[in-house]
Amino acid sequence: MDMNKDRLNRVLGAMKGRKIGQMLVSDPAAVYYLTGRRIQPGERMQALYLNVNGAHRWILNELFRKDEDAAASAARRDGWGGAEMVWYRDGEDAVEILSRYVEKDTAMGIDRTWPSGFLLRLQELCRDNAFVDASGIMDDVRMVKDRAEQEFMRRSSELNDRAMERLVPWIAGGLTERELAAKVYEIYRQLGCEGVSFEPVVAFGRGAALPHHAPDDTRGKRGDCVVIDIGAYKDSYASDMTRTFFLGEASEDAQEIYRIVLEANRRGILAAKPGNRMCDVDRAARDYIEEKGYGAYFTHRTGHSIGLEDHEAGDVSSVNREVIRPGQCFSVEPGIYIPEKNLGVRIEDLVLITEDGCEVLNHFPKELTVI
Amino acid sequence: MDMNKDRLNRVLGAMKGRKIGQMLVSDPAAVYYLTGRRIQPGERMQALYLNVNGAHRWILNELFRKDEDAAASAARRDGWGGAEMVWYRDGEDAVEILSRYVEKDTAMGIDRTWPSGFLLRLQELCRDNAFVDASGIMDDVRMVKDRAEQEFMRRSSELNDRAMERLVPWIAGGLTERELAAKVYEIYRQLGCEGVSFEPVVAFGRGAALPHHAPDDTRGKRGDCVVIDIGAYKDSYASDMTRTFFLGEASEDAQEIYRIVLEANRRGILAAKPGNRMCDVDRAARDYIEEKGYGAYFTHRTGHSIGLEDHEAGDVSSVNREVIRPGQCFSVEPGIYIPEKNLGVRIEDLVLITEDGCEVLNHFPKELTVI
Repeated sequence: MDMNKDRLNRVLGAMKGRKIGQMLVSDPAAVYYLTGRRIQPGERMQALYLNVNGAHRWILNELFRKDEDAAASAARRDGWGGAEMVWYRDGEDAVEILSRYVEKDTAMGIDRTWPSGFLLRLQELCRDNAFVDASGIMDDVRMVKDRAEQEFMRRSSELNDRAMERLVPWIAGGLTERELAAKVYEIYRQLGCEGVSFEPVVAFGRGAALPHHAPDDTRGKRGDCVVIDIGAYKDSYASDMTRTFFLGEASEDAQEIYRIVLEANRRGILAAKPGNRMCDVDRAARDYIEEKGYGAYFTHRTGHSIGLEDHEAGDVSSVNREVIRPGQCFSVEPGIYIPEKNLGVRIEDLVLITEDGCEVLNHFPKELTVI
Repeated sequence: MDMNKDRLNRVLGAMKGRKIGQMLVSDPAAVYYLTGRRIQPGERMQALYLNVNGAHRWILNELFRKDEDAAASAARRDGWGGAEMVWYRDGEDAVEILSRYVEKDTAMGIDRTWPSGFLLRLQELCRDNAFVDASGIMDDVRMVKDRAEQEFMRRSSELNDRAMERLVPWIAGGLTERELAAKVYEIYRQLGCEGVSFEPVVAFGRGAALPHHAPDDTRGKRGDCVVIDIGAYKDSYASDMTRTFFLGEASEDAQEIYRIVLEANRRGILAAKPGNRMCDVDRAARDYIEEKGYGAYFTHRTGHSIGLEDHEAGDVSSVNREVIRPGQCFSVEPGIYIPEKNLGVRIEDLVLITEDGCEVLNHFPKELTVI
């Protein structure tokens, strides 16, 4: 199996840097990142075994075999370092097959999303090995988007701006949250997206005051805030944006909260630049909200990294002291949620870190809008 | 947090039977099974910690807190054995919090789908504990559907029959595979389903000959076989059915293959009864296909268990020697795939095991149909 040479080389370099001689990549997005092929193995085992010595192997159920695999296998004879395919059948012990390739005298790096059942079996088969969570290696490499990825991120968010535009005329149309969420799916399909990158959040009033509320049969009523948090995949890259609207009117309280959240969003974005730490972005947004007396109502981190997945490693939180690098992409999404007032406001944009600041990937307007 | 008492008691009984004093349930479907609440924690940790002594705890990010949690927490004081909620915040070490409840002197059961990153951290914190894959306990309990679940399975498959009915007029309508797949989503939404239980398989000709082909821009042409493998969630329970049609005409070859697969499906269903083993169902279908000379073209297991998830533990394969019990629900889906002839046929029904045989949950016709 051919792999993206640049990306593989960065991964192998990071493995050497961390003294991990061998590791598994199993997360579908990480496997896609290296191989360009997305396998959704379901409950079946998949493991892309990487070794700093170049003996890479991809152990996969033969149900996922494709015509081009024969060709790829021939190409591998060039020896630049693709992965040799190892096919197994349903009913075979896939982890035992994997264990044959594990070098016994050195730690084995594991992908943090690999299901524990496989790890427990591998630990049983390789009792002398230490096992370590090596996901940080792929995380670090994937966190900095290469040029091709940056372009995919831009295009994906462009479509998300358009999706929000198309959704707006429906928001005050009397639909339930569930019906509006269905509209979101329809719009993404019309726009040629592959699917949502997370279940759309469409929340009126009370629901908007709960950050992870799922759409139900509530209809909006005059004065309600409406939180719309939506995203989709385009060419495998995720978008994610939140806007908050008001139906018919916005109370004084609502206007105040909105202004505070918008300013927090702006301050977070200003802090998103190389040299700052991720926690500085969180701090910039959070400080302002705290200063205004609403700190207790901002109950989540300020954002998360994004790319091939909606949530990638590297959160924008008070505890993440990693220094920001050009090419990173993450959300800035402060919010204030006051259940007693049925009021919630969140404003979220994606930013792509440049050499000296950031490019905001979302362009849908952020002024307070009553519809 | 209240739990379903019968189900919890069956789980605790199974834990005692297997001498597992404590274990984690983390899989969203398994957690839903016990608590009636579905949490999709994303990359955040969730762990429902069960202890045979009744000190159950549910460790969960406070983002998932709901109004009724206060009430549930009050109800818990009745002491019948609900779970005490333990809320953590983003930025806290959730696994460390969990580790405080782990009894050090006895093995800790782990849910096989729990991400390895959490397990590796827990192993680091609880160095004296043995860790074992205890998923078999939940699997065994969930495998036998209780009365309420049986009714949900019936209703979910009824809707799937109707979905197939609504889809048929579109199959020969010149749409691409991708467009037909979009139609499947639309139909399920109209029917009030919560969403697909797996990506719809809609495959013409060549694609139909590859069992896990993803819909692309291919359009059907005269003589093509069309494999339609679809399912959805209704009230959290999954459906799953496959039918194969032919466009305009069915060649002699196609007719022969279809007859063989249909008979294999019939024989598999006949073997689906208490006392037989799961492998007997596989054998019954596979023997017939082998006898007809197509054994090499039936490249997957005959079926899989189904319920709250499309694929549940307990596959219908040559290696599963478990004896079938009333209340089990699984698919019978033999297929023959001949890439050289661009020909694939699969016929799949769900069966629910009764006291002396099985109830077939799908009623959509299976005669060879040219459209």
